Amino acid sequence: MDEELTLDPIDWKALRLSFQIAADLCISNMEAVREGPVWEPTPDRVKAHFKEALPQEGASLNTLLRDFEENILPYGTGNGHPRFWGWVHGSGSAAGALAEMLAGFMNSNVGGRDHIANYVERQVIDWCKDIFNFPASASGILTSGTSMGTLIALNVARNEKAGADVQALGVSAGRRMVGYASAEAHGCNSKAFDLLGLGRQSLRMIAVDDRFRLKPETLRENISADKAAGFQPFVVIASVGTVNTGAIDDLVAIADICRAEGLWLHIDGAFGGLARLTGRFRAELEPMSLADSIAFDFHKWFHVPYDAGCVIIKDEVAHRGAFSARREYLQSTESGLAGGAPWFCDYGPELSRGFRALKVWFTLKSYGIKRLAALIEQNCTQAKKLEALVQAAPDLELCAPVHLNIVCFRMVFDKDGKATDALNKQIVALLQTEGIAAPSTTTINGETVIRVCITNHRTRSDDLTLLVSETRRLGVLINSQDVNLGA
Amino acid sequence: MDEELTLDPIDWKALRLSFQIAADLCISNMEAVREGPVWEPTPDRVKAHFKEALPQEGASLNTLLRDFEENILPYGTGNGHPRFWGWVHGSGSAAGALAEMLAGFMNSNVGGRDHIANYVERQVIDWCKDIFNFPASASGILTSGTSMGTLIALNVARNEKAGADVQALGVSAGRRMVGYASAEAHGCNSKAFDLLGLGRQSLRMIAVDDRFRLKPETLRENISADKAAGFQPFVVIASVGTVNTGAIDDLVAIADICRAEGLWLHIDGAFGGLARLTGRFRAELEPMSLADSIAFDFHKWFHVPYDAGCVIIKDEVAHRGAFSARREYLQSTESGLAGGAPWFCDYGPELSRGFRALKVWFTLKSYGIKRLAALIEQNCTQAKKLEALVQAAPDLELCAPVHLNIVCFRMVFDKDGKATDALNKQIVALLQTEGIAAPSTTTINGETVIRVCITNHRTRSDDLTLLVSETRRLGVLINSQDVNLGA
Repeated sequence: MDEELTLDPIDWKALRLSFQIAADLCISNMEAVREGPVWEPTPDRVKAHFKEALPQEGASLNTLLRDFEENILPYGTGNGHPRFWGWVHGSGSAAGALAEMLAGFMNSNVGGRDHIANYVERQVIDWCKDIFNFPASASGILTSGTSMGTLIALNVARNEKAGADVQALGVSAGRRMVGYASAEAHGCNSKAFDLLGLGRQSLRMIAVDDRFRLKPETLRENISADKAAGFQPFVVIASVGTVNTGAIDDLVAIADICRAEGLWLHIDGAFGGLARLTGRFRAELEPMSLADSIAFDFHKWFHVPYDAGCVIIKDEVAHRGAFSARREYLQSTESGLAGGAPWFCDYGPELSRGFRALKVWFTLKSYGIKRLAALIEQNCTQAKKLEALVQAAPDLELCAPVHLNIVCFRMVFDKDGKATDALNKQIVALLQTEGIAAPSTTTINGETVIRVCITNHRTRSDDLTLLVSETRRLGVLINSQDVNLGA
Repeated sequence: MDEELTLDPIDWKALRLSFQIAADLCISNMEAVREGPVWEPTPDRVKAHFKEALPQEGASLNTLLRDFEENILPYGTGNGHPRFWGWVHGSGSAAGALAEMLAGFMNSNVGGRDHIANYVERQVIDWCKDIFNFPASASGILTSGTSMGTLIALNVARNEKAGADVQALGVSAGRRMVGYASAEAHGCNSKAFDLLGLGRQSLRMIAVDDRFRLKPETLRENISADKAAGFQPFVVIASVGTVNTGAIDDLVAIADICRAEGLWLHIDGAFGGLARLTGRFRAELEPMSLADSIAFDFHKWFHVPYDAGCVIIKDEVAHRGAFSARREYLQSTESGLAGGAPWFCDYGPELSRGFRALKVWFTLKSYGIKRLAALIEQNCTQAKKLEALVQAAPDLELCAPVHLNIVCFRMVFDKDGKATDALNKQIVALLQTEGIAAPSTTTINGETVIRVCITNHRTRSDDLTLLVSETRRLGVLINSQDVNLGA
């Protein structure tokens, strides 16, 4: 018998030691993260290292850990650093990383069947329904993020509102379906329209007001025009926290329109949704419970390691109807492993699904909702502080109202717009390549701006003071040399 | 400054100890897996435990680890056990679990930008192109599994073959598109047709021969009929390893038809594809390189922890064209974090994507292709051995040819078909609930059968001997009592 191969180690003690070495390495790195650069470019030597051919023979774990220490760990995204504020990234946590190891050992496929990972995921979904005041009868599923959550929600909405059996016959069987989101809404929405066979142009981009919120009156006009043209409006996507500026759409006004017109209300709460847990945003985000579906992420403001998102759907029957279609080898049984319906493969497009729920469960149990909510509130307070610092600096200009946790500003000299755009791009590139800080850039009203999105539990107020002084120092330097340093 | 909150621990030494406790617990469990039951039902007490309300306050990691040890670890799927042969599950590995911890700490979002996780994933994709003899110019992306890989590939195929700008205008803008797969093909294919707006009925289920392989002549007839009816055939999905019986379609015949008819050839190689690495299947699976796209999984026969799949696509331009559409806040820059194009969000529907590549990379580097391939070959040899054991037993009957790693059989007494179906369901339920072994059931030619799928690096030949003797013991017991014991 023992001549048969396995992947199990011969020396289990050595395996234990490898885990200890690995954990110590990562914990030391996390403990010292503030001392290092936010980010450094991957050197050409390292890039070449990852061009090696398919490995024929194996290597010891300790050899691979040295490789990891030298060639992988130093060149991450940088979102664990206190001065990472690019795009919308969470900072991660030790509890989340621990849970990933446990889930790796458990090796559960949470597509279905009767085992504990399903119960853990169902509990996490129940907690989410509680957070957004959805009824106990609602359903949900963990996803890689809001892009996938949106795809799932819009698919349910499409099938519910089609007026034809589009699941069997395709969308051509019904009238042309159209939906609406603000011009500031996330790109994943039109990607979902494309994938679902509806076409990107069927998602109407509605104009926004001076606080970058969808204009309800324009929405109403668009719906009327589409109806008059013989199209079938079916969904409105409201944003709770746009990527550019953190704008929150007027949920009550949009919900009223959806009710009057019989449309599905989907909320993109990717990062902003969880602000509902704070005292500051509780009232404004209370109407999220009016939605038919909400998609949001745990890997942003809850700092769960990537990837971890969620979608909840008020009508469980519609949700299950859109995805459940099991073949003979997946039939449920009353007892044994094939029990435990409903299975998560009945709520989404995936049959293979890892035990993502465990890191969310560990994060919530380990830190508790109060502390997680206090950190969201702290980031919003820090954004207000940064806004004040920008307003106090004569050569900086604020480019959008600060409502949530995003501050958009730019450095301005007496130059034309194109030069100012280039200057601010160069400032951000230098802040990043010098490892000082990692804001990102975006375009507001046609102008390039520096964008600081604080979803970071390690940021301290003095990090923001440093950002402002370094931005101005680099801006003056670039302007005086008048050369293209980094962009 | 220090009054500001963070999720970081105060006591970093205690954190190191928690990781050591966690790793030791999981390693001890893995080391002793053969001694325990394959699976046990989650007790009601534990189910109730996972009904607790949203946690307001935090708890220590060590408290949570005790919870994990008591309430989670014992109630997994069982696929780490040597006698787990249900559905198609890999067995996991220590190297994979270690990599999950490292990835958890790195907390990378591999949707885009310039950081090391992208280089690691690109290397893994390069290795996959090498495995299937795809050109260097091909592209690919890691997915949660073949369901998502199929969705991505069929979306590219749909857009390529539509003859209209369906991305902008929706699928209604073109003729009705239809595709083909065998009647034994995986359910994820029709789910993808539904999601893509084409409709499940647009995927034609082609009859199979007595070895459960798609009949090329019937395929040809179906294509002609659809063309005559004014439909637009666009894709054929060939199966390399069907779930029911492990059948491998005639790739050369299907590729010829695709070439003649101008259709996209997609291969579902979910578990069977990697058998190409073995001496036994190299010649038969050589024509996989003729495909336009291949989807397959690492969490099955490569034992990478769930979830880890991949799709590779020969035409990189078509692939990128189907998914790249970035908004202003995601524009690339020449230097800094926003460099490093192409980004993986240009190859799939997700913008948030974890560092899934690391566990695949660790698995391949740690064990090497030769050993992984030898284990695939070993499982196929074990399936042949089980086939012989079944054929030697007078009360067992083989229900499908054994070609790859799947053995379908049933116990037969002198009874009607319905009673025999019930008997075999009860045998499987008892094997599972008593913790002896975990095969699954399926339906072959209308009859319920016991299905053993060996994608397990811990299975030894004597485990199969035990399965046969226990099956017969339980069958005799159930038959003599003539009662419904477990199903």
